[in-house]
Amino acid sequence: MNLILLDTEHQLDQGRYLLSDRQQAHISKVIKAKSGDILRVGVLNGKMGEGQYEPPSDTSPGYIHFISLTQSPPKPLPMVLVMALPRPNMLKRTLQNISAMGVKELYLIHSAKVEKSFWQSPVLQTESIRQSLMEGLEQAKDTVMPRCSLVPRFRPFVEDQLPAILQGKVGLLAHPYFAKPCPVDIKDPCVLALGPEGGWNEFEVGKWLEMGMESVQIGERILKVETVVPVLLSRLYPSL
Amino acid sequence: MNLILLDTEHQLDQGRYLLSDRQQAHISKVIKAKSGDILRVGVLNGKMGEGQYEPPSDTSPGYIHFISLTQSPPKPLPMVLVMALPRPNMLKRTLQNISAMGVKELYLIHSAKVEKSFWQSPVLQTESIRQSLMEGLEQAKDTVMPRCSLVPRFRPFVEDQLPAILQGKVGLLAHPYFAKPCPVDIKDPCVLALGPEGGWNEFEVGKWLEMGMESVQIGERILKVETVVPVLLSRLYPSL
Repeated sequence: MNLILLDTEHQLDQGRYLLSDRQQAHISKVIKAKSGDILRVGVLNGKMGEGQYEPPSDTSPGYIHFISLTQSPPKPLPMVLVMALPRPNMLKRTLQNISAMGVKELYLIHSAKVEKSFWQSPVLQTESIRQSLMEGLEQAKDTVMPRCSLVPRFRPFVEDQLPAILQGKVGLLAHPYFAKPCPVDIKDPCVLALGPEGGWNEFEVGKWLEMGMESVQIGERILKVETVVPVLLSRLYPSL
Repeated sequence: MNLILLDTEHQLDQGRYLLSDRQQAHISKVIKAKSGDILRVGVLNGKMGEGQYEPPSDTSPGYIHFISLTQSPPKPLPMVLVMALPRPNMLKRTLQNISAMGVKELYLIHSAKVEKSFWQSPVLQTESIRQSLMEGLEQAKDTVMPRCSLVPRFRPFVEDQLPAILQGKVGLLAHPYFAKPCPVDIKDPCVLALGPEGGWNEFEVGKWLEMGMESVQIGERILKVETVVPVLLSRLYPSL
């Protein structure tokens, strides 16, 4: 946690923000801050700067006050990431990476090779997703919460939603076969579609291509989803 | 596990290799292979191809036989990675990523901000490191085991070992301050030195620069070590 991200929902009054249990635990145990210490803070979807820490007392939980916010958050990645829903045990770390790297628009969609049971996982609850994305922001020192949409059906997404999302962007389908090498350091915004373990099936690949996506590959090595996300984003936008 | 990596130490006779407990468990529970099934295999530090599976019986553990090896492993990254020893809970995943991405020479070294206790962690035992690196190879479909050296003292490494390692390579020091942007898609081999959480201290940065390294940065965002490794390697060598 390189930034304490203050949530306007936890704003006590104009200058005071309550800390969440997770933030309080980090400040007490890792930062070991005392009353009056200055900490790096940011306001969710707002600016970053410094704030003074007041630890919990008998009458009040811990909070941050006397906040001065002068710094803008880092630039977002100009892209929309569409991913087949990863295995639940990989989702938390993958979401943290996605949010830490500056993706602001994310769709988790169904694909033939995504096990149906993944959609029932508790890690998909709104609060759990928000928590992982927030941890990514606090790691990277960013304040802007990504939008994450869950789309449990493949075809309506690709046929009905994709055309509008793709407007004005390059469409890249990560797919290891019959693909040209994924471009490096692109200047345009893009939509990147990342398949499940085992890849998109033939029908799905056909649909993506039909909608104007182009298939790209990153070489012979097969990487885990939590590794392939930073690899691809860094390759597409190395300077951001 | 996209490849069963057979260890010459477990070779029964010319055409048969015993499976490790971990491989046996994966074949039984995930692949659910039966007697005679053909699996993708590779021989450690050798070629890749196919082999026939024989499950464990009352008289013998499981093994692979009738092996045909025709395919070469993917190209290695032309680099030496020098890392401050990461936190033990990040080490396993970081080693897997490093090996999956094709690094073949790795030094884990001490730095002022590495807690001394990290060097006592059981994840640093030779067998545990080898296991993580092997899992990375089996993930990526590679056979060539990286060399990993543990260097618990900073200064003798930089002063005595680094000059020979650096010969004929570009030296890049990942460091967020007073640094130019990390280059993209470089053609030369390199030594990349990656600091601990909190970065190299002033003395260490001075030493690296004195030895001919150049400091480079990847932008405002602070990423976890397990994320920054794929980000940097993909940025330096996107086409490998």
